[in-house]
Amino acid sequence: MKQSELFTKTIKENPKDEKSINAQLLIRAGFIDKLGAGIYSYLPLGLMVIENIKKIVREEMNKIGGQEILMPSLHPKENWEITGRWGVEEMYKIKDENLGLGWTHEEIITPLVKKYATAFPKYIYQIQTKFRNEPRAKSGILRCREFLMKDLYSFHTSEDDLNDYYEKVKEAYFKIYDRCGLKEKTFLTVASGGEFSSSISHEFQTITESGEDDIYTCKNCGCSFNKEIFDSKCDCGSTEFEEKKSIEVGNIFKLGEKYSKPFNMDNIVMGCYGIGITRVMGAIVEVFNDDVGIIWPKEVAPFNVHLLGLDTDANEIYNDLQKNGIKVLYDDRNKSAGEKLNDCDLIGIPIRIILSKKTLEKNCVEIKRRNEDKLELVEIKKLIEFIKNEL
Amino acid sequence: MKQSELFTKTIKENPKDEKSINAQLLIRAGFIDKLGAGIYSYLPLGLMVIENIKKIVREEMNKIGGQEILMPSLHPKENWEITGRWGVEEMYKIKDENLGLGWTHEEIITPLVKKYATAFPKYIYQIQTKFRNEPRAKSGILRCREFLMKDLYSFHTSEDDLNDYYEKVKEAYFKIYDRCGLKEKTFLTVASGGEFSSSISHEFQTITESGEDDIYTCKNCGCSFNKEIFDSKCDCGSTEFEEKKSIEVGNIFKLGEKYSKPFNMDNIVMGCYGIGITRVMGAIVEVFNDDVGIIWPKEVAPFNVHLLGLDTDANEIYNDLQKNGIKVLYDDRNKSAGEKLNDCDLIGIPIRIILSKKTLEKNCVEIKRRNEDKLELVEIKKLIEFIKNEL
Repeated sequence: MKQSELFTKTIKENPKDEKSINAQLLIRAGFIDKLGAGIYSYLPLGLMVIENIKKIVREEMNKIGGQEILMPSLHPKENWEITGRWGVEEMYKIKDENLGLGWTHEEIITPLVKKYATAFPKYIYQIQTKFRNEPRAKSGILRCREFLMKDLYSFHTSEDDLNDYYEKVKEAYFKIYDRCGLKEKTFLTVASGGEFSSSISHEFQTITESGEDDIYTCKNCGCSFNKEIFDSKCDCGSTEFEEKKSIEVGNIFKLGEKYSKPFNMDNIVMGCYGIGITRVMGAIVEVFNDDVGIIWPKEVAPFNVHLLGLDTDANEIYNDLQKNGIKVLYDDRNKSAGEKLNDCDLIGIPIRIILSKKTLEKNCVEIKRRNEDKLELVEIKKLIEFIKNEL
Repeated sequence: MKQSELFTKTIKENPKDEKSINAQLLIRAGFIDKLGAGIYSYLPLGLMVIENIKKIVREEMNKIGGQEILMPSLHPKENWEITGRWGVEEMYKIKDENLGLGWTHEEIITPLVKKYATAFPKYIYQIQTKFRNEPRAKSGILRCREFLMKDLYSFHTSEDDLNDYYEKVKEAYFKIYDRCGLKEKTFLTVASGGEFSSSISHEFQTITESGEDDIYTCKNCGCSFNKEIFDSKCDCGSTEFEEKKSIEVGNIFKLGEKYSKPFNMDNIVMGCYGIGITRVMGAIVEVFNDDVGIIWPKEVAPFNVHLLGLDTDANEIYNDLQKNGIKVLYDDRNKSAGEKLNDCDLIGIPIRIILSKKTLEKNCVEIKRRNEDKLELVEIKKLIEFIKNEL
């Protein structure tokens, strides 16, 4: 894609109404636009990141037997009265209608699976917009009133089967965070069942200074607990903990019969497993940034490489990269070298390729990885091979 | 995919609360489930069809320079007050909030493009859930309160440029209907600008007996007009028309400055171009069905082939088809031949492959295309080649 044609624009100053790093950087770099508190539009660059995260999540869900469906956002009052949750604050209601907006889907999936499942277990998921009445919408895309979520629901005929599958989902989640670049910073954390369950649940918490959550990690055994459940003494006997700020990037619950029972689904135990797609995107930005911009991990980056023609055009290299299936953003704009370099750092594509008169004299381009300082000259005729090795 | 594992179920009787053919067949065949009036869940088979249609629409939009974004469904009152459309009946309002649910996106895209576009023309689209307060929700997925739509908006510095692009979109739309199998039955129809515009617009109307719209086609020159604009005399001078029932599967409008002006976007003229993704799915079913079920056109079908093991298992053939990249639904269920054959007709995948003891004796499978009566024996060793030629 030529940058002169891309629908986006970088902004020099931080937006005044945004305090979070993710919103500041994503807005300044032209990935998202704020429409209202906790409500954002995703521009082409932002949507590309979302689609990459969705692809990762889909692949890992499908590997553990997940089947994808799409449930509605408009939810009839009747379904929510059955579980007594029609009145919860999280749920937006439609004026003059007996309809609410889905902030979770237990009340929809349970009767659906009851009606259509011909055998168990069943693992059903969707990737869909959720709506949540959120008074604390001040953390950019980490906590929105409208956001994208993957929600998986599992249905089993025994607790043992649920327990086995719960462990499989844990593994799948770690693979997802690994592919999103977040694995090193993400900890499995014991939490209460909260709104969803009376039993224990687990959260996946990504450590970052700007996180809204607190987790406590045992210095002896490494077990992590969230604030609600933290008891100052670990199961291993230790009382020494480290407190860290974190972002909840996923959660998994054993629901037992909490929802199957009200819908007369006999002897079925359930689990539910959420990942906020847009929240993961925000968490990635919170973790991977520096003074000058975002640093996208490879698999979620909107493009593989950012090609800059400085005092010369780089059309031939652009075409060659495209022909070889390399996703390239080509800065062909009539801008100063300084502006192009700044925008490149801000946008944060993993590899920068510069063609200038100087490099051209040597039949080379200059390569720089966004997460390294090192500059490298690579012969133009070897560029494709070089880049392919980087992907 | 093995049918024994697929999350779906066929139903023998037509659902009593559905009068439209599309809803009856899609529910009976296990593609969709009704949650409420005009509100449906899409089961795996249904979502596969949606994804196929989305892929076609995306490819054709990208070919005419469209850039994909994702705008929110929650719309602030302020945006809609600027155009005076906050009060329209179509729009659901959120209780106790100054928010409405997006039923179209002119009020969001216009200020967004004003803010981010660095050059014109710009062609921006999204594929997204729309919500519409719809008292007449009785035509299955043709007229829903929640539905998927592709909406493209174009921004130009001259009327000529808008006119040129408008023609390009027409061509792209015909390509989309062609790939969806609807081209022969779909007519470009002159319509009024309606809610969106004071000038003339065009609709794409697919002829089917169950359609809610009426169009009038001139017997002399073939021009079509919708009911609102029909004047009993064609531009060609003829007064002889044929009246037909039809479904509006797309519409295109020249908006001029109707929305750019209120948002102080000077000297910019706009066009908007919609296709209802789920409505196209419904229209396909209305057009392509027979007494026993749906007949999916190739490119939108959830699977390429439906493999039935009747009195023998067909695991080897199943694996072989999959290995060769052929999307196959394999009926491995412990059901009678009659049930399997009926379900196969109902679901409507383009090619049926039967392996039975009888065909196996001849080292063959029996092939039947869903839209033909002819049965054909094909040697098992030549099956992959045969199917690849069909795709």
